[in-house]
Amino acid sequence: VSPKPDADSVRTLGILAGSGTLPRAVAQACAARGIGVFVIDLGGAVGDWARDFPHERVAMGQVGRVLALLTREGCDAVTMAGGLVRPSLTGIRFDRQGLALLPRIARLFRSGDDGLLSGVADMFEEKGFPVIGPEAFLPADLARAGDMVGQGAARDDIALGRSILDALSPFDIGQAVVVADGVCIAVEAAEGTAAMLARVEDLRAGRDGGGVLVKMPKRGQDTRVDRPAIGPDTVRAAAAAGLVGIAVEAGGVIVLEPGRTERCAAEAGIFVHGFAR
Amino acid sequence: VSPKPDADSVRTLGILAGSGTLPRAVAQACAARGIGVFVIDLGGAVGDWARDFPHERVAMGQVGRVLALLTREGCDAVTMAGGLVRPSLTGIRFDRQGLALLPRIARLFRSGDDGLLSGVADMFEEKGFPVIGPEAFLPADLARAGDMVGQGAARDDIALGRSILDALSPFDIGQAVVVADGVCIAVEAAEGTAAMLARVEDLRAGRDGGGVLVKMPKRGQDTRVDRPAIGPDTVRAAAAAGLVGIAVEAGGVIVLEPGRTERCAAEAGIFVHGFAR
Repeated sequence: VSPKPDADSVRTLGILAGSGTLPRAVAQACAARGIGVFVIDLGGAVGDWARDFPHERVAMGQVGRVLALLTREGCDAVTMAGGLVRPSLTGIRFDRQGLALLPRIARLFRSGDDGLLSGVADMFEEKGFPVIGPEAFLPADLARAGDMVGQGAARDDIALGRSILDALSPFDIGQAVVVADGVCIAVEAAEGTAAMLARVEDLRAGRDGGGVLVKMPKRGQDTRVDRPAIGPDTVRAAAAAGLVGIAVEAGGVIVLEPGRTERCAAEAGIFVHGFAR
Repeated sequence: VSPKPDADSVRTLGILAGSGTLPRAVAQACAARGIGVFVIDLGGAVGDWARDFPHERVAMGQVGRVLALLTREGCDAVTMAGGLVRPSLTGIRFDRQGLALLPRIARLFRSGDDGLLSGVADMFEEKGFPVIGPEAFLPADLARAGDMVGQGAARDDIALGRSILDALSPFDIGQAVVVADGVCIAVEAAEGTAAMLARVEDLRAGRDGGGVLVKMPKRGQDTRVDRPAIGPDTVRAAAAAGLVGIAVEAGGVIVLEPGRTERCAAEAGIFVHGFAR
């Protein structure tokens, strides 16, 4: 494997895109920076925005087709962004190159979502396509330690949330929980942070506010894939759910559009705090 | 505290009722057995069915009023059934007797949902109202060990679900997870099993089936309150979510309407398995 290019040296980026706002943000940021983009819509998870970019829809398991498309479009790096619902292994129709990798993919399927994504990233790199985390292309920073917005509060709830995420870390589940008044009211798994916060909003409808979103990477997280992030949307959803703040691991969680995120939090009156691991 | 009566010796049961189908099932089962019922609707969480029974709506914190109502109605035992969204301590308007108990309630608020419910049960018992688990009034059995319906399957997914619930046990979170193909896709917290299964149905829409609901009590669970249960509704929701089965701790999880639950599972083609702790 040759040394990995940094984002600035990429000419055309292949975006392996799932659902949510992240893949679109990556595509738009690349366009603004003069980096070419080719969007691979995995199983139709991507919204209409892909029409604004060169794109192709592929079914899960079409490994040979994806590699051929990346080569045809001259992609010199790949990023994996957005949410995917893991299909069942028996439900995937593999093409010939996919079938050749089937024993390896079957093993990866038993290793949790992180293991699967890391293994897929390894395969792309072996085929000559370096995999770069989507945040490298975005206006984004890693969370800072200390109070980013507002005053530190809810220390006990943050500590409880960290303990729970630590306990869950070996199981490759979610990366976020909501804790309010000493009680964990929501644990994120495959549904993602946005869906979890929507549920908290419903659960707490008509009640007083309170509660903190706590988010941090799993131990041993592969930074090429699925690194936890917050952004303006997270802040708005947390405020709508009646939370008083967001606590993230400093250096471990990405803050998308940091200026806008911090302004949103200040306007909504919720704190954003970075804790050291 | 005098010895606790069993369900058959109760003349009038006070039902401290939250949301969901359980409080109504308790009220109807009592009526069928000739046990009087008085429904206390906590904060308006109870549906219209309460009109069929003597009932009163109280706000959280109206401790004196609840005790006076139980006395006025001649209740000789109390059961706590249904879901409540925990209010914030500062959002509760306490009556005089509630205020007298405030330091104790404030401590309970820091001890998790189970701690809170157990402490509330203790207070009722000290005031002379024994607290009996709702299942004592229902046609219900504890889950048996082994295959209750169908053939044991998905052993690895069940084992993973049990490990996750064990890891979460110290934190007083939910009592159920969904695991599919080696990956935990949902963790129950305050939303309850029905909402968790509805989310799994959405997440897996259009995908192949697979996955198991795993449910067990927390370690040290107070059996007077919030003991985990499954019933026909659980079976239907699990089938709708595309799951292949339900695994519960034998002797630890209640099976409501066991005959109907097992028939529903057999018809839906999903297994029900009891594992030993």
